Amino acid sequence: MADVSVNLGSSSYHIIIEQHCLDQLDQILHQLKFSGKMLIVSDEHVGSIYGEKIASSLLSAGYHAELFLVQPGEKTKSLKVADQVFTKAITMGLDRKSAIIALGGGVVGDLAGFIAATYLRGIPFIQVPTSLLAQVDSSVGGKVAVNHELGKNLIGAFYQPKVVLIDLNTLTTLPERELYTGLAEVIKYGLIADSGFLQYLNQHTEEVLNRNPSALSYLIQRSCEIKARVVEQDERESSLRMILNFGHTIAHAIEANAGYGKYNHGEAVAIGMHGAALISYYLGLCRQDVPETVRKVLANYRLPLTFSHCCIDEMMDLLIRDKKTIGGKVHWVLLTAIGETTICNHVPDELVYKVLSELKES
Amino acid sequence: MADVSVNLGSSSYHIIIEQHCLDQLDQILHQLKFSGKMLIVSDEHVGSIYGEKIASSLLSAGYHAELFLVQPGEKTKSLKVADQVFTKAITMGLDRKSAIIALGGGVVGDLAGFIAATYLRGIPFIQVPTSLLAQVDSSVGGKVAVNHELGKNLIGAFYQPKVVLIDLNTLTTLPERELYTGLAEVIKYGLIADSGFLQYLNQHTEEVLNRNPSALSYLIQRSCEIKARVVEQDERESSLRMILNFGHTIAHAIEANAGYGKYNHGEAVAIGMHGAALISYYLGLCRQDVPETVRKVLANYRLPLTFSHCCIDEMMDLLIRDKKTIGGKVHWVLLTAIGETTICNHVPDELVYKVLSELKES
Repeated sequence: MADVSVNLGSSSYHIIIEQHCLDQLDQILHQLKFSGKMLIVSDEHVGSIYGEKIASSLLSAGYHAELFLVQPGEKTKSLKVADQVFTKAITMGLDRKSAIIALGGGVVGDLAGFIAATYLRGIPFIQVPTSLLAQVDSSVGGKVAVNHELGKNLIGAFYQPKVVLIDLNTLTTLPERELYTGLAEVIKYGLIADSGFLQYLNQHTEEVLNRNPSALSYLIQRSCEIKARVVEQDERESSLRMILNFGHTIAHAIEANAGYGKYNHGEAVAIGMHGAALISYYLGLCRQDVPETVRKVLANYRLPLTFSHCCIDEMMDLLIRDKKTIGGKVHWVLLTAIGETTICNHVPDELVYKVLSELKES
Repeated sequence: MADVSVNLGSSSYHIIIEQHCLDQLDQILHQLKFSGKMLIVSDEHVGSIYGEKIASSLLSAGYHAELFLVQPGEKTKSLKVADQVFTKAITMGLDRKSAIIALGGGVVGDLAGFIAATYLRGIPFIQVPTSLLAQVDSSVGGKVAVNHELGKNLIGAFYQPKVVLIDLNTLTTLPERELYTGLAEVIKYGLIADSGFLQYLNQHTEEVLNRNPSALSYLIQRSCEIKARVVEQDERESSLRMILNFGHTIAHAIEANAGYGKYNHGEAVAIGMHGAALISYYLGLCRQDVPETVRKVLANYRLPLTFSHCCIDEMMDLLIRDKKTIGGKVHWVLLTAIGETTICNHVPDELVYKVLSELKES
């Protein structure tokens, strides 16, 4: 078992990483002194595998637990679906001592977290991420949100869970492409913060891709640690936390322009990290071996380096409307070396255009 | 000019109370180092009086300010209207350095605060309350919310403004009944926390009802101070803050049962405070002169002591569903003396029924 603590004063919590911790959910909740009602929010895929089992184990442990299933997919992150979950919460009588449990991937975590953050002005929230992407990224750090029809994640909060439970067992049934998308974020942590971790990833590619439990446990733990240390210093993303957006500026433009779903998040981030590394090199911020190292690790992990389904002119427009812009400037996270970043808000448009052209398959 | 500070660590802010501070809004915002875009949310009543004037003064001071008007009334506090404001915020390009300005009464403050708390996971928020009720109650303390069709204020956050600007001048045009409803909350502060302040209110009834500016300034300041001191000790309403709900348990049942709008909030709170004082006396918690004092001050301020449009059996049902219940118990705020409270969660149903019967006009 691994345990990563996230130290945020009165909002501190632990991330527990274990092989079969879902089987002990009731005991863990008892140890954490949870009582009362629990609303488990899940999607129809994950919920059909684990939902009923968890609900009935909580029921037999004396909790009043109910399960609410949503459709899988990004469209579920809407105020409309949130309203349905609120209705469920009210009719089952959830109060401020009750908890919302998010059982699933990033969509479920973001939606359920938004409910927990805003229902009765905030009730306890428990994250049980079941995809690698959610385990290493969205379940850590307290960003919760729903989408607006004009953009992703525009409505939300910074709201920390009381505990994050990561059951490695949930990764055994994860589709391959979902594994790779999570690994893109894992690689990101190495690139922005820990060259030794990147080396580990390069040296243990086979174990990781074969889902060796101890390799997965280690990379989840290290990813959560890196993210936790960043979030501890800048919970509300006023400065340092921006480095977690490495690769995401171009990624958001790819996702939006190709249509959400064409590239999944990790694939878009992989291409975006490649692009950011190229920009870093062309600006003279790093040596040529930095983009080469980025290309090598991404290729090892079956992740794309280039895109084909996007229009560069439209992407340029999208980049300017990126919600991370402040006062109209895009804040680029760039590399000065493997494991070291800098923020740059004056990347010339021409250079961005040039790099996007290189990223586009001819 | 009076200035009340609300000390909440990194979320601290000032409440500025002044005769014509709206005319200096642009200077105040400059002093507070606000820059960039401003979305002013107001309703069609208040907005038609002050909205355009403020928007154009901000524009000429160099801000990009736009006005968004909502319908007056409780129905505006919905996710549906919130979604419209989000659309406005996105299309005008509000970013994390922009601000939302709530110009109006409690409905506008609660809605705009919910937008500010959740748009891009939180952007700066400025309260410009224009009703006495909002000035002494809803604009202070950071409670923001919208309603769900199954209940009021069920979706929201604790989100503090950056500054509260109270222009006494806005009270000159306030309808009489709106003045009285605010005074109910003012009286509440005396009853729960400061017998000297209650004495002031009894001795200066005429000045207050004649809207003497220095009397209004003092009572707003004292009300804000009392609320601020409570909120500082318990921002998230886990214990002490509950005393601010004095009178509100019965009030919520009156409002819900009579239909929202039949009694306004202050009227319902007045009747509720009378009821809570009676319960306190019948439980032996205070002397008989406590409910007498409550009746006297409420009557002086033209506030009702009894109701006629409610069904007691239905109210009893509502009381049990009150959202302040935790683990199924109603937390009653009761008086042990004028200016002193206690929380009691075991008031017998029969006593509640008896008191509601006394409050009902035959």
